[in-house]
Amino acid sequence: MLKSENSNGSNAGNGANGGGNGHAPEVSTGPLPGSKKIYIPGKLHADVQVPHREIELEPSAMEPPFRVYDTSGPYTDPAADIDIQKGLAPIRAEWIRARGDVEEYDGREVKPEDDGYRNKESAELPAFDLGNRKPLRAKGGVAVTQMAYARRGIITPEMEYIAIRENMGREQALEAPSGGESYGAEIPAIVTPEFVRDVIARGRAIFPSKINHPETEPMIIGRNFLVKINANSGNSAVSSSIAEEVDKMVWSIRWGADTVMDLSTGTDIHTTREWIIRNSPVPIGTVPIYQALEKVDGVAEDLTWEVYRDTLIEQCEQGVDYFTIHAGVRLPFIPMTAERVTGIVSRGGSIMAKWCLAHHEESFLYTRFAEICEIMKAYDVSFSLGDGLRPGSIADANDEAQFAELRTLGELTKVAWEHDVQVMIEGPGHVPMHKIKVNMDEQLKHCHEAPFYTLGPLTTDIAPGYDHITSAIGAAMIGWFGTAMLCYVTPKEHLGLPNRDDVKVGVITYKLAAHAADLAKGHPAAQQWDDALSRARFEFRWRDQFKLALDSETAEAYHDETLPAEGAKVAHFCSMCGPKFCSMQISHEIRDTAKKGMADMSEKFREEGGEIYHKVETPPAAE
Amino acid sequence: MLKSENSNGSNAGNGANGGGNGHAPEVSTGPLPGSKKIYIPGKLHADVQVPHREIELEPSAMEPPFRVYDTSGPYTDPAADIDIQKGLAPIRAEWIRARGDVEEYDGREVKPEDDGYRNKESAELPAFDLGNRKPLRAKGGVAVTQMAYARRGIITPEMEYIAIRENMGREQALEAPSGGESYGAEIPAIVTPEFVRDVIARGRAIFPSKINHPETEPMIIGRNFLVKINANSGNSAVSSSIAEEVDKMVWSIRWGADTVMDLSTGTDIHTTREWIIRNSPVPIGTVPIYQALEKVDGVAEDLTWEVYRDTLIEQCEQGVDYFTIHAGVRLPFIPMTAERVTGIVSRGGSIMAKWCLAHHEESFLYTRFAEICEIMKAYDVSFSLGDGLRPGSIADANDEAQFAELRTLGELTKVAWEHDVQVMIEGPGHVPMHKIKVNMDEQLKHCHEAPFYTLGPLTTDIAPGYDHITSAIGAAMIGWFGTAMLCYVTPKEHLGLPNRDDVKVGVITYKLAAHAADLAKGHPAAQQWDDALSRARFEFRWRDQFKLALDSETAEAYHDETLPAEGAKVAHFCSMCGPKFCSMQISHEIRDTAKKGMADMSEKFREEGGEIYHKVETPPAAE
Repeated sequence: MLKSENSNGSNAGNGANGGGNGHAPEVSTGPLPGSKKIYIPGKLHADVQVPHREIELEPSAMEPPFRVYDTSGPYTDPAADIDIQKGLAPIRAEWIRARGDVEEYDGREVKPEDDGYRNKESAELPAFDLGNRKPLRAKGGVAVTQMAYARRGIITPEMEYIAIRENMGREQALEAPSGGESYGAEIPAIVTPEFVRDVIARGRAIFPSKINHPETEPMIIGRNFLVKINANSGNSAVSSSIAEEVDKMVWSIRWGADTVMDLSTGTDIHTTREWIIRNSPVPIGTVPIYQALEKVDGVAEDLTWEVYRDTLIEQCEQGVDYFTIHAGVRLPFIPMTAERVTGIVSRGGSIMAKWCLAHHEESFLYTRFAEICEIMKAYDVSFSLGDGLRPGSIADANDEAQFAELRTLGELTKVAWEHDVQVMIEGPGHVPMHKIKVNMDEQLKHCHEAPFYTLGPLTTDIAPGYDHITSAIGAAMIGWFGTAMLCYVTPKEHLGLPNRDDVKVGVITYKLAAHAADLAKGHPAAQQWDDALSRARFEFRWRDQFKLALDSETAEAYHDETLPAEGAKVAHFCSMCGPKFCSMQISHEIRDTAKKGMADMSEKFREEGGEIYHKVETPPAAE
Repeated sequence: MLKSENSNGSNAGNGANGGGNGHAPEVSTGPLPGSKKIYIPGKLHADVQVPHREIELEPSAMEPPFRVYDTSGPYTDPAADIDIQKGLAPIRAEWIRARGDVEEYDGREVKPEDDGYRNKESAELPAFDLGNRKPLRAKGGVAVTQMAYARRGIITPEMEYIAIRENMGREQALEAPSGGESYGAEIPAIVTPEFVRDVIARGRAIFPSKINHPETEPMIIGRNFLVKINANSGNSAVSSSIAEEVDKMVWSIRWGADTVMDLSTGTDIHTTREWIIRNSPVPIGTVPIYQALEKVDGVAEDLTWEVYRDTLIEQCEQGVDYFTIHAGVRLPFIPMTAERVTGIVSRGGSIMAKWCLAHHEESFLYTRFAEICEIMKAYDVSFSLGDGLRPGSIADANDEAQFAELRTLGELTKVAWEHDVQVMIEGPGHVPMHKIKVNMDEQLKHCHEAPFYTLGPLTTDIAPGYDHITSAIGAAMIGWFGTAMLCYVTPKEHLGLPNRDDVKVGVITYKLAAHAADLAKGHPAAQQWDDALSRARFEFRWRDQFKLALDSETAEAYHDETLPAEGAKVAHFCSMCGPKFCSMQISHEIRDTAKKGMADMSEKFREEGGEIYHKVETPPAAE
């Protein structure tokens, strides 16, 4: 049976854990409504098994089950043995070792300071039992990145996995191309493993694929593919349990987060992160400067390259998949923010700005960038080059500081690529609609088509409490224009810490924005989902409508609020219009009539000029 | 003291009724947080008094009170005597009579059938006591529309009122033009009464301004002005009281609805509508075919021109301000919908389609269009030409049926203008982002720049329960492109009837979408609001941030969820980052440092090439 911790009521995970393994999972498990997990095997690599979610439709639909992209990992598979004490199966471990270019080593000693303690032996939370597992790193300073393999022409199992995952539904879609405007993104009819290899080689897309996080299910971030979303997570001030911390990640991916950033600060962050990574099927990102700052007691001026480097290695060994590094916050750019309405709003950006000012010195993230690349290439950690000078208000959008930093990020992108390190670029922020496209254009131009990863952008500042919506507008648009991953914003943005419901609303909101972008870009298979749901709607298959909804539970609950009876779920009307006014019911009658020869009749009208009933005699106005 | 009926808890209206008139208002009254009502007098017309909401800021802001557009009517004015039994003061009554072209008459007798009863003497709800008030109509068949006056060069008090209302903040804005892309909309730096007259004369904007609804505060719908929003309302299956029905309208305008459509069906709709109109300071729209259908017991085939005409006159006499009329659903277009995924989704459209098919005859709304114009010009009711064939799914967007109807609406626009009747055009529906702009372009082209009034559009079908958001994306975009009014969508769309919270969420969501559009269009004063809020945010004026938020109550509640202490509202940090990581706090330090000469230092860096700390030695990658 399920034991869902950290649930605040309405949105708990559901379903039973069918593993029959005798222990109770402590996180949200069980399939989503009407869904089951299927696995599609690879052809090039026999042990590639790509999960999809298959939604069973009512028999009256006379349609095959509908397949959707599945980020939820083994947690929604009743056959999976979920035990957060053990962590997930390291599905990529053999692929990583089989390449023969990594070695186990003892790794850095974990210290109380890693958890923010000076006078204590260990964290408050229990340590994850790693057994005899040791970190891996590249042998002899070679690059063990997917980019390095791609450039050498190697199609890794990860690349095939990604191709299968992205291809979902495309074969059917070939028959009816959906159009769209991709603004130069190359969107193939069918994604081949070779295509994946090629775009990774050219830096156009990344798989944040840490060798020390073999539990990840490969996924790709790039404008040639489905638009992805990230959910942020962070430790609680008062963590009641490890399960609670792990479940924040599990809850996010259940609803569709493609990656999760752990933005924890304070104490126990090393230990919490270990639990999260060991149990995460999606890439985990962090902002290492947060932990580095904890190690110097929060005094930005006391940060050093040595402390930062130590933190990078610590996190590389744990298996963080991508690092936000604000290396573009250069000393000369800082005065450009002095006249802004909201100054510097990035935490990492402001920490580095403070350091630069205190020392009157260029940022060590910038001066040591090549050294950072050397570390990251040995673990295949990807860069998420942070936009520390992003605008925090409409007034500051697209200003000198923002674009100066963007150009620097482009310069650093080339340096990272020289080291075969994968890169994505972070973007704003707060931007009014008419200034969004130029952000994308400038990013493509100056950052050489490295994937863009934006926060929103929020299209107005006047709606705190609704910033998931002010930003979904901007996110959908910039996703259409070419942004590869959208960082979610919850309703609590600017106001407080998101609770479990807020996280779900944030994820679903960004899922719909990403899908709207996929549609507009002309992703070949995107519209199949809309069509499946609309057919269910038109045919009064209420249960299918709920199951096909991004958030089945909310859709069904809203329906039941007005028409709770079971019978209403098969009724040929709904509460909005009632049976007498149901336009869809009337449409069915029209369709039937049409079959009886309306088409012929209409043809007749047209032949006769189509105007025979046009009795309006008044001549058109002179304007 | 306030007695707020129909409140479901968290979002009740608040504040005390300071009128001291001895009776308890039964609807949501009292000022919004930190706000007071002010009135700006006219110059051309002495009795023009234009309401604005003025938000008082904290003394530390050292800023004057911030003025915002105010749709809420007298309900938020503590000095107003609110008594729904009496209705609102008919502020336009004298202006209407002073023009000398209308006459009182006995009007049509109200019958039980008007309320949907055959075998009963009267409605369930008590009638509004009209006293000796009688309907007005034009003398001798002249047009008494604002368009007719405008074309004769007359600047009515209504036009001056509108100019003052739209001008809010523009004088200050003249100093710093905000840019933006208006796609051809002519947006003046200052709105003059003459400008209002000119655009109304040319049909570019409308004031739905029924002579029998003198309680309305003049407002304008057109792409040269602030983007407006409409909220829908409808009678409850079980109405517990008149106050409850009236409060639906009051609640919508409290949060920002510019017009309200009464989409009631079933019984008591005449009586309910009378109460709503007499108490509404905003224009009220209806779909007369709904009531006409009730009069023929819901059998579409039994509809006749006579029943429809009778309903129009009934509603003209009551004071409905605009009618949705689906006159573009022509017989030859109906077969074009037969292959659609979701057929006809407009209720009015499907009713007329069914009628056309049953009779094998062109729609009487089309054939009798000139007669309809003759009725409407005698009362200054505006057309909202309905898009009965709008797409109900992504698959059906921009199809042959939709655009055939749109071209017909353009043809009918010219007919209406010939009768001096004001017109706006309704638009979709469900449209993916890449197909939105062409909707606006086609509408402007074929409908001769008559104002566009769209429902959303929803940019994907896969998120029932979140369709306020799927549609806010499309609404913000089409508002930017030139749509004059956005019809809200609530989270319950497609699923059930919105409750009080849903209505509020729908209104706020559309308010933010409309504002995002104003910003992008380059409305001269729009950004002032964003800037005021962002300054408050940057200066840690939490209370000002709440007061300036579109939904102050939610913003404050979200803040208090994490940091409830009173002290936290003056704290120089928030719960997201805490004091140690506060980027805004650090920014203040940077600003202080900058004042101490950072600018000079930066200049020095630049003079020295700006690269002195650039230690990255790796050459750029070949890419």
